Amino acid sequence: MNINTDALTILDISMPITRLMPVYKGKEHKRPKLSIDSDFSSSSAYETRLEMNLHTGTHLDTPLHMIPDGYTLEKLELSKVVTACRVIDLTFVRDKITDVDLQKFTFKEGDFILLKTRNSFEDILETDFVYLDKSGAKFLAEKRIKGVGIDALGIERDQPGHESHISLFESDVVILEGLRLKDIEEGEYLLSAAPVLIPGAEAAPARAYLIKP
Amino acid sequence: MNINTDALTILDISMPITRLMPVYKGKEHKRPKLSIDSDFSSSSAYETRLEMNLHTGTHLDTPLHMIPDGYTLEKLELSKVVTACRVIDLTFVRDKITDVDLQKFTFKEGDFILLKTRNSFEDILETDFVYLDKSGAKFLAEKRIKGVGIDALGIERDQPGHESHISLFESDVVILEGLRLKDIEEGEYLLSAAPVLIPGAEAAPARAYLIKP
Repeated sequence: MNINTDALTILDISMPITRLMPVYKGKEHKRPKLSIDSDFSSSSAYETRLEMNLHTGTHLDTPLHMIPDGYTLEKLELSKVVTACRVIDLTFVRDKITDVDLQKFTFKEGDFILLKTRNSFEDILETDFVYLDKSGAKFLAEKRIKGVGIDALGIERDQPGHESHISLFESDVVILEGLRLKDIEEGEYLLSAAPVLIPGAEAAPARAYLIKP
Repeated sequence: MNINTDALTILDISMPITRLMPVYKGKEHKRPKLSIDSDFSSSSAYETRLEMNLHTGTHLDTPLHMIPDGYTLEKLELSKVVTACRVIDLTFVRDKITDVDLQKFTFKEGDFILLKTRNSFEDILETDFVYLDKSGAKFLAEKRIKGVGIDALGIERDQPGHESHISLFESDVVILEGLRLKDIEEGEYLLSAAPVLIPGAEAAPARAYLIKP
């Protein structure tokens, strides 16, 4: 690896965290609260405080999110999320990504796949966002990929048993949610999506970016 | 750049965020609060909530922290913090890093320098941590480096005018605080310290790591 980083093209794929950002299904408790701990009216330093549910914005889920004895963030190897990845274009999907939709692509063991959908272009993140159907999750889990990301605030919705999360977690596939892929072309990249280190937690925010090879 | 990432050596240099972690000068309002929004006793999903001052743990400061019209996080180019860097060994310094301490090293424009001190080895993070003296900050600013990191929760202490922060910010040097460098040898690395994207904020947590070339 060349240590000369001046020529790297770094592509930010993270959502800005703001009070008015889209949150999963528009749930109020998912909206972050930002407040000021000190400013220059009474202090020589400006300091902000953040309160938020850890499934807000761009974040990584680990298995405890859906599986009672699932592992938590301190167990995550960074090599799972600092890795080659592939963005695939699923903007043709209307409602949910099924196994049939995925069969037109080839996958290999250890891939990290980012699903680019029409969520990146339409104002549907809090409502009828495109998600990974349980058949699609099972398909990817059987391909033994190591991670999957999506431009939605949840990898699934409207599946009461959370089958998509559970299929993926049971096959040790990490899940990256809340990506912004509008300006990202289908293809191969280096992904960095290292979550803030919160031991015992089932999720944490990440500043995710891609590097163009 | 080779897209094969299997052989990368990734070195985590981030502090775990926990209730009992060290915080700047032991200030209670800097201690993070973690709570549970839902668990399996009443829900099918486990979700954690975090509340914290953004200067807790491993984080990046931008100029608004100390300069009233300083820029905030959304203005930060990721190439500032995803970059070649150099770790220098200052474990010989007892109290504060001065210009004299730094004169034994060579620096060039655009360097990102990580200061490894005895903070990484001793239980002094909340009290008498080694810091970058204003003379050392001025020295580095004049070398036109682009960033500086330290294994302390503040780049300075006991300087009421915050001269170290201000010298650095006025020369457009970003500041990375709360690193863990105990296991990191002096030398060159690729640094990734991309902060969570919080527009308008003067700081944000980052999962910082190094890649060994």
